[in-house]
Amino acid sequence: MCTIKITLPDGSIKEHKAGSTPMDIAKGISEGFARNVISAKFNDTVVETNTEINEDGSLVLYTWSNDEGKKAFWHSTSHIVAQALEELYPGIKLTIGPAIENGFYYDVDLGDKTISEKDFPEIEKKALEIARGKHDFKMRSASKQEALSLYKNQGNQYKVELIEDLEDGTITFCDHDTFTDLCRGGHIPNTGIVKAIKILSVAGAYWRGDENNPQLTRIYGISFPKQKELTEYLELLEEAKKRDHRKLGKELELFTFSQKVGQGLPLWLPKGAALRERLEQFLKKAQKKAGYEMVVTPHIGQKELYVTSGHYEKYGADSFQPIHTPKEDEEFLLKPMNCPHHCEIYNSRPFSYRELPKRYAEFGTVYRYEQSGELHGLTRVRGFTQDDAHIFCTPDQVDQEFMNVIDLSLYVLGSLGFENFTAQVSVRDPKTPEKYIGTVENWEKAENAIINAAKDKGLDFVIEEGEAAFYGPKLDFMVKDALGRQWQLGTIQVDYTLPERFDLTYKGSDNELHRPIMIHRAPFGSMERFVALLLEHTGGNFPLWLIPDQAILLPVSEKHEKYAEKVLNSLENNEIRALLDKRNETVGKKIREAEMNKIPFMLIVGENEEKNETISIRKHGGEDLGALTIEEFSGLVTKEINSTLKSF
Amino acid sequence: MCTIKITLPDGSIKEHKAGSTPMDIAKGISEGFARNVISAKFNDTVVETNTEINEDGSLVLYTWSNDEGKKAFWHSTSHIVAQALEELYPGIKLTIGPAIENGFYYDVDLGDKTISEKDFPEIEKKALEIARGKHDFKMRSASKQEALSLYKNQGNQYKVELIEDLEDGTITFCDHDTFTDLCRGGHIPNTGIVKAIKILSVAGAYWRGDENNPQLTRIYGISFPKQKELTEYLELLEEAKKRDHRKLGKELELFTFSQKVGQGLPLWLPKGAALRERLEQFLKKAQKKAGYEMVVTPHIGQKELYVTSGHYEKYGADSFQPIHTPKEDEEFLLKPMNCPHHCEIYNSRPFSYRELPKRYAEFGTVYRYEQSGELHGLTRVRGFTQDDAHIFCTPDQVDQEFMNVIDLSLYVLGSLGFENFTAQVSVRDPKTPEKYIGTVENWEKAENAIINAAKDKGLDFVIEEGEAAFYGPKLDFMVKDALGRQWQLGTIQVDYTLPERFDLTYKGSDNELHRPIMIHRAPFGSMERFVALLLEHTGGNFPLWLIPDQAILLPVSEKHEKYAEKVLNSLENNEIRALLDKRNETVGKKIREAEMNKIPFMLIVGENEEKNETISIRKHGGEDLGALTIEEFSGLVTKEINSTLKSF
Repeated sequence: MCTIKITLPDGSIKEHKAGSTPMDIAKGISEGFARNVISAKFNDTVVETNTEINEDGSLVLYTWSNDEGKKAFWHSTSHIVAQALEELYPGIKLTIGPAIENGFYYDVDLGDKTISEKDFPEIEKKALEIARGKHDFKMRSASKQEALSLYKNQGNQYKVELIEDLEDGTITFCDHDTFTDLCRGGHIPNTGIVKAIKILSVAGAYWRGDENNPQLTRIYGISFPKQKELTEYLELLEEAKKRDHRKLGKELELFTFSQKVGQGLPLWLPKGAALRERLEQFLKKAQKKAGYEMVVTPHIGQKELYVTSGHYEKYGADSFQPIHTPKEDEEFLLKPMNCPHHCEIYNSRPFSYRELPKRYAEFGTVYRYEQSGELHGLTRVRGFTQDDAHIFCTPDQVDQEFMNVIDLSLYVLGSLGFENFTAQVSVRDPKTPEKYIGTVENWEKAENAIINAAKDKGLDFVIEEGEAAFYGPKLDFMVKDALGRQWQLGTIQVDYTLPERFDLTYKGSDNELHRPIMIHRAPFGSMERFVALLLEHTGGNFPLWLIPDQAILLPVSEKHEKYAEKVLNSLENNEIRALLDKRNETVGKKIREAEMNKIPFMLIVGENEEKNETISIRKHGGEDLGALTIEEFSGLVTKEINSTLKSF
Repeated sequence: MCTIKITLPDGSIKEHKAGSTPMDIAKGISEGFARNVISAKFNDTVVETNTEINEDGSLVLYTWSNDEGKKAFWHSTSHIVAQALEELYPGIKLTIGPAIENGFYYDVDLGDKTISEKDFPEIEKKALEIARGKHDFKMRSASKQEALSLYKNQGNQYKVELIEDLEDGTITFCDHDTFTDLCRGGHIPNTGIVKAIKILSVAGAYWRGDENNPQLTRIYGISFPKQKELTEYLELLEEAKKRDHRKLGKELELFTFSQKVGQGLPLWLPKGAALRERLEQFLKKAQKKAGYEMVVTPHIGQKELYVTSGHYEKYGADSFQPIHTPKEDEEFLLKPMNCPHHCEIYNSRPFSYRELPKRYAEFGTVYRYEQSGELHGLTRVRGFTQDDAHIFCTPDQVDQEFMNVIDLSLYVLGSLGFENFTAQVSVRDPKTPEKYIGTVENWEKAENAIINAAKDKGLDFVIEEGEAAFYGPKLDFMVKDALGRQWQLGTIQVDYTLPERFDLTYKGSDNELHRPIMIHRAPFGSMERFVALLLEHTGGNFPLWLIPDQAILLPVSEKHEKYAEKVLNSLENNEIRALLDKRNETVGKKIREAEMNKIPFMLIVGENEEKNETISIRKHGGEDLGALTIEEFSGLVTKEINSTLKSF
């Protein structure tokens, strides 16, 4: 009997008889584990859990808790939903049904039929009925001719078109129950694992994304192995909708967009601009302590600048196109990053090793072309301001500088109330050294610097081989927001290329010229993206030090307006940002609106308060703090601010 | 005998016999006055002081103290210098010799001869000899043919070319001594008035400014009615050279330019960026008190935005050309001003009259194309940051808003040490109402508002009819720097056009929609130009609150470095910006360098200071303040800062 050697992710090697399936191998590990296995990858190729393995190789087994497992789960559900659709709407034509980040979709040509929200329960019911049948997913090969004739008979020109692009011998189908679909594979063992299915929405989509092609109906859905998980997901979705930064940004008057100015070009309204200024001043203060120096550079640069940096060759064709001058033969580009300008500042005078590191920081607004369909609120824009800095240092200093940048980044995240973050360290793929520039020695130094710094700082981090940029390794901070969603924020990158391309030098202790190393970093990432994330994380309830209006004075009647104005003045002198609501409305209504506007403290003033020179405090959310003097209230505000905003 | 009626600038009308000259009329006023008269204008046309007048009209008589007088003086000197050149370099060909802002030039074709700095004294000597001859300048007419044949005989193709462009009957010559020149007129009575002549420089210049034409030699010079005035002027020139902001900006490490980034695009170095930040924070603070709200807008806008504003039609062809996108049919422009963006912010929601005025402020960086030959340091650049704001108000509010803006502008100038300023109010030309848009009523309101505000604020101002923009009247601040040179700085403009073009509205107390009025204003003008002016005005000795480094610690030996570091730390805690010079150099040398770096306080620490916990203070310029404690020194700094920087 033949045996095969299977290497598992922990490095252990198991012997199995040839023809064993991933599920057999999972059972070999433990029956309990095998019950949770829903997908597998053999030698970097997705396989079914019942695919027979006949050669040595490495195997990864996935459960629902892996992204790969979820992908197989959702893709399999798209088959189930497709079957339900065919049964409910006979004669429709199926096209493709992939898994996406959250769930799956299936694009169908409904002919003269339509599907709307009211049809979703029926589709869900039918799909769930099919799922409960516990039908196995079974892959099988077919010849091109066989495959073509199947769909030609159905009159499905979409599948025919797909098959025509495939090579004979590579075509496979997946069957379950009475349903068959052209499919490359990647399914869960059987339909019964799917316990909850939700159709989320329906939208139009062009066949193959081309607007010259027929329009199809795209049905979005999601599924879970437990009903409870679906319930939780739908609650999260509801909460996320409320926290959508585009909705909150409008309600709180932070930013707006104008069709005339252009898509993806945010206009910061007074409250938003003031909030942004507070964020910038906060970081400037910490950066000053950390030895950074601010610089200011223009938003354009000659094309030659980006030819030198290499950006023009790499991104030029997909960027905003060059700006010509009317009389002279000059070409400028909107700057897509600040590094070339900072290199030119460094190059404006000679440096000695004694003067390094130099740390140039700038809130630099950059412009990058994105297709209009890709734009999204403040998270995907065409112009944004990076809290950028470039550190020019000797190879010996990289280690310490990197640690310092991590400290600064952690300080920034902590002060903004982010407690849940992980880091991803991206290093070279040692198998392809030709993909990277710089000496092996420097790379090793830099990678070790990053890994040691991440360890020293107690970061929860993963190392991704082959994910480094060609110019150097990097560390990205991944933040989990209040809804558990993961966002990539700040980044720290080590760069050997630009110092080379811009011929940057410093005079070493040996009196010779040496090449400095550059560190790029941005703790916020960009002001736009960061504010968007903060809005969604806090639902608009920003940390007290940052929130636009910290308090609002609510006089119970016109009689008390004078006193309220006196209080307002005192609060201003105490540097508390307060409003006064003088409208002729009930206090009840004023409180409801202040709640909606996310104002942390509502200060009610009436007869008693005026007499006793106090203010009655109601916190956002309803907590009643009773009557306090202005000094007591100021003390309270200061204390609450100091609890999140420590000095760096 | 025929008489003519001559109206003088004060409105008085004098009768003279026909054929009287401006000099006769001057003598009629007073002999003493007539001795100073050097030029005249009759009915808006420049005439000679000996031109016979045979009709009624208005006459202006100019002396050296008028710009027009200086122009005649310098233009006449160019004739004298031309004669000197012809005598010294026989056979050269004269072209043109106009007066300029400071002096005059003459462009000559030297053939195979050359003139360099070492030849200047000889030219000056010869010219002065001619001047002392007290030769009258005499204009005479000539026929085109006569004029042509004169210069054809000399082989002077330049003058021939000039004459060919003239109409027969309009051609005049000016004679003095043995010298004759083709000339439209505008001379002083005789050469003897010119007592001092200086040839300043020599440069190349293309005939008629066209590089396809032959290159000529341009000889620059200046002249005065008194030797003393020349001496003073040359001293001023020397001082101005020392104060050249390009030179100081480099020495003080405030800004730099990079060929790769592009001409006219300044890079602000750390010290310059920090100085600029202090200026911005200073203005932000005052603006906050004055009820402004900061906004942030992008540096580009769709072409359509500028078609709406009217800027595209007016300036499009001479501006940086449109930016295209790679995949979509979109066109953007670098923003040449911030107003259209601010209009779109105003338009993002409806306003009631109760909410006006709205005052949107932004340190907005704008880009305007200038030909490379026109660029000059920070005063003529291609990208600059305006301290811009736009006030949207009702017609009734214009008056008060304008007064407030003047207050703010005066506060800004005062805090920066400018004491010498005047204002120019630009109003309509009432004779050409068709050139302006908006109702007569609104114009009158706005013009009166400006004039009354200027009067109320005790400004020294002139009214210039016909100098208003087509969209509204304006007030410009003119500042005299330490060398007596005049600069145009801040501007306040009233605008009826943009609210119309952007269809801005507010709901009035009558519940109807009305058009707001916009005020554009920028107290600094632009950060670049303002810093340049401040550099030249102060010679780098900025006001103490603004200067990059306020103090430098100079330990007399290495022994005292520890103490110096302790002091440095205390100064930082007292928010004093100080440096520590640890170099192994003598205190004498360190003091000399600190002087050069314009550092206001040199703090010397040695044996005694360390023992007594003091610092010995030497002020920039040499004054010795003796030993002070750190508290005493901090008090001194605070007091000096508060003496210029009051709160708004």
